[in-house]
Amino acid sequence: MGRATEHLAEHLGQGVGGLLNATFGNAAELIIALFALSKGLTGVVKASITGSIIGNILLVLGLSFLLGGVKYQKQEFNRTAASISATALTLAAIALIIPTIFHVVAAQVPVGLGGWTPAREQNLSLAIAIVLLVTYALTLVFTLVTHKSLFGNSHDAAKDAGKDVRKIETESDADESWSMTKSVSVLVGATVFVALVSEFLVGAVEGARETLGLTEVFVGVIIVAIIGNAAEHSSAILLALRNKMDVTIGIAVGSSLQVALLIAPILIFASYLFGRPMDLEFTLPEVIAVAAAILIVEQISGDGESNWVEGVQLLSVYAVLAILFYFLPDVHAAGASTAVPAH
Amino acid sequence: MGRATEHLAEHLGQGVGGLLNATFGNAAELIIALFALSKGLTGVVKASITGSIIGNILLVLGLSFLLGGVKYQKQEFNRTAASISATALTLAAIALIIPTIFHVVAAQVPVGLGGWTPAREQNLSLAIAIVLLVTYALTLVFTLVTHKSLFGNSHDAAKDAGKDVRKIETESDADESWSMTKSVSVLVGATVFVALVSEFLVGAVEGARETLGLTEVFVGVIIVAIIGNAAEHSSAILLALRNKMDVTIGIAVGSSLQVALLIAPILIFASYLFGRPMDLEFTLPEVIAVAAAILIVEQISGDGESNWVEGVQLLSVYAVLAILFYFLPDVHAAGASTAVPAH
Amino acid sequence: MGRATEHLAEHLGQGVGGLLNATFGNAAELIIALFALSKGLTGVVKASITGSIIGNILLVLGLSFLLGGVKYQKQEFNRTAASISATALTLAAIALIIPTIFHVVAAQVPVGLGGWTPAREQNLSLAIAIVLLVTYALTLVFTLVTHKSLFGNSHDAAKDAGKDVRKIETESDADESWSMTKSVSVLVGATVFVALVSEFLVGAVEGARETLGLTEVFVGVIIVAIIGNAAEHSSAILLALRNKMDVTIGIAVGSSLQVALLIAPILIFASYLFGRPMDLEFTLPEVIAVAAAILIVEQISGDGESNWVEGVQLLSVYAVLAILFYFLPDVHAAGASTAVPAH
Repeated sequence: MGRATEHLAEHLGQGVGGLLNATFGNAAELIIALFALSKGLTGVVKASITGSIIGNILLVLGLSFLLGGVKYQKQEFNRTAASISATALTLAAIALIIPTIFHVVAAQVPVGLGGWTPAREQNLSLAIAIVLLVTYALTLVFTLVTHKSLFGNSHDAAKDAGKDVRKIETESDADESWSMTKSVSVLVGATVFVALVSEFLVGAVEGARETLGLTEVFVGVIIVAIIGNAAEHSSAILLALRNKMDVTIGIAVGSSLQVALLIAPILIFASYLFGRPMDLEFTLPEVIAVAAAILIVEQISGDGESNWVEGVQLLSVYAVLAILFYFLPDVHAAGASTAVPAH
Repeated sequence: MGRATEHLAEHLGQGVGGLLNATFGNAAELIIALFALSKGLTGVVKASITGSIIGNILLVLGLSFLLGGVKYQKQEFNRTAASISATALTLAAIALIIPTIFHVVAAQVPVGLGGWTPAREQNLSLAIAIVLLVTYALTLVFTLVTHKSLFGNSHDAAKDAGKDVRKIETESDADESWSMTKSVSVLVGATVFVALVSEFLVGAVEGARETLGLTEVFVGVIIVAIIGNAAEHSSAILLALRNKMDVTIGIAVGSSLQVALLIAPILIFASYLFGRPMDLEFTLPEVIAVAAAILIVEQISGDGESNWVEGVQLLSVYAVLAILFYFLPDVHAAGASTAVPAH
Repeated sequence: MGRATEHLAEHLGQGVGGLLNATFGNAAELIIALFALSKGLTGVVKASITGSIIGNILLVLGLSFLLGGVKYQKQEFNRTAASISATALTLAAIALIIPTIFHVVAAQVPVGLGGWTPAREQNLSLAIAIVLLVTYALTLVFTLVTHKSLFGNSHDAAKDAGKDVRKIETESDADESWSMTKSVSVLVGATVFVALVSEFLVGAVEGARETLGLTEVFVGVIIVAIIGNAAEHSSAILLALRNKMDVTIGIAVGSSLQVALLIAPILIFASYLFGRPMDLEFTLPEVIAVAAAILIVEQISGDGESNWVEGVQLLSVYAVLAILFYFLPDVHAAGASTAVPAH
């Protein structure tokens, strides 16, 4: 899929290519979520959004910093680029907290006076989804058009990184250029394949879950996220071992960012198409987990350098959050039921 | 008013002048708030404090970064000065959260054992107001006396900026120096004028509010703040277009800071004079809005440079918060009624 | 005690010496807490943990910045070292918030479906305590082994600071080297002495408390912390006056860090030995106080320089938090009773 996107990019230009790459890089997450959404499992969808955000910036980035830092005393990256991404994540965290705040406050007021109703929560979420999507689009313009030099300067990263990613994904690059048709076919084929594998994996995980006595929320936030982000894991860590920290951060933070600013809004819109409108109201532990993850990443990435203990710190926060979700009862089911009052 | 203050400064020295300028720059907000306070509308007063803080650092600063950033690839400002202000804002946010925490916790305890009462909330708020005021006074000493070079070094900002502001406010500066009497008269006259206009505007807004079906809290936090900060808006944006970012930040962040550390305490003290003691307990959405705004400004101003996408990020947070207040039922009325238990 | 540790370090090596110094530096806090723990006073223990964390980073560091900043226009310190510590504190804050979140969420679910029970809260706390301890151990490896140059580079601080601390602690250093036996004896003796003095002080404070009408939580969080950290206070301030900011920060932030990452986990483990398991669930005001303190320290230490107004800002936050705890009714007793349901 990575290569197909890349070849398509040759036809459509680097800007659109970057957009495509970003979009299809999270394809697995999106497809799993759309399946769950079509069945009305909004709790599972939200758990996977949470899990994907914290998994990328805590687990993937943490392992990268740790393993890269064991090899190198100190690793450097472009501070401005990292800071823009971290701020965008903060923005996303604020946006994802707002619907929960709305619920808490509006629930105290009678419906007749403007109190909480599912429809109002959905309208609020829809409006926020539009703001997030516009922000994401403008961030792409910034990254790909007006300030692209910022994201490709250090160590000639742009070119180098492209080569590295390609080398990692496949050592054989005999086919130099694909036709437009071939690219699109491979892309669609790969997407269908991922969809099937994802369905199978989710089914298998569900079976294992009951055997192991794990809760749905733990599986959704922790286990599924680890499986779903396997591609990001291996790429990011391998690049950290080659001291290409800008690309590592681009993958880990960029992926979280995309889930928050692109995938989440798309899922909201899709939920309307499916006739089962979803809102953006997360449970308290999810909100805290996302806020904590973003806070610590912001601090760690602020100085433009990393070392192994920073990796340990990210992993510690991940461990603490995993412990919380392990001990938590299945509140997500409860959360989902308040969002869709069936009785 | 700006010019009157400036001329008065010539008589009293730059230090006192700066204090005066800061004080009278927020005169409109203060006067609107005092009117509302005298009528016992503490909910409206708090909404205007919230609105003024988030309006200045999200809307004014966001538009300045965006428009300045469209013209310049990158704009720089004094990191240390911006950081001192951002930290002072964080301090203010913490101080404004405390009374709400106190209410939540103390309300669970019977009054006989030290539980929540309006009087205790007011005493707590009064003590915090004194801390804020002392901090503000010491910050002025830092800015105007011990470290004034810090706030006027980059690009000879001090002198330049003064000139720029004057040029913006009026292109005709025939009258080079006013007498002390004239300055004071103009100042008092302008203040009375602002008071009348504000009263009129607030009345007009109230009429429009009912026609448009907007809630009081949305009007208080969003609409009134935009009107009340119009002066800051135009000055800050024009200076950003001239690449005088230090002054832009001084106006936007400084104005928020003053509302939190000076205006809010003054209003608490004034409420005792009016015999209708106000506390500093804000509603949950207000607390979250202020905390979110300050968090994102802190991140964005931390690196001493700005670009257009940072403007977009600030405006996005403002949009998300505006959406929250648009959908919120009129909880402020409810909040005020819990603070003043009528039954 | 300081000198005994130092001499012991000569026998066991600098690495172990640092560990010992850190461990015994907080001996008073640990001993007070163990006494309280053995009596089942978990509320008092938690209050002293909270008080020690916020006291060190707000009061000690604030006074150091203020007094050092009055003498020097600007003081500099190693940004990377300060940033690692601040991030570790953030991690600790997140870890200490999690048990409270767990309680809030799990309490809404029936026990049969995985709802809140004291045993589950204790297991969660035990798991988090292990993560904190492992993180602390790895941070020590980072500080003392792999990146020790980072913590001793600026102004040859390592050697200098050692000398300074020794000079402060005692002006007479006739005895150049002690035997292993003597070191251990002095250490044990001093520890017993501290234990007795602490017991006496806590008793005296309790008497004074009732006379003055102060609440237990105010005494626990504010008064005991000031007495218990007296050693850190004097050393940190004296070093700030000599412009040795790296050591000042090492003492103040390092001490807070150790309380959160080492003392708190040890107390959890000890509580099991005593047969009265303690959890890590803090009251809401404690969680907010720790989070606020860490947030503001993170901001202030982020730029690697300090001045007197930053000291004022830290002290203002301390004052605001002290005001909160002064007005708060004794909720800690209530909090402790929910954690140990006796009826």
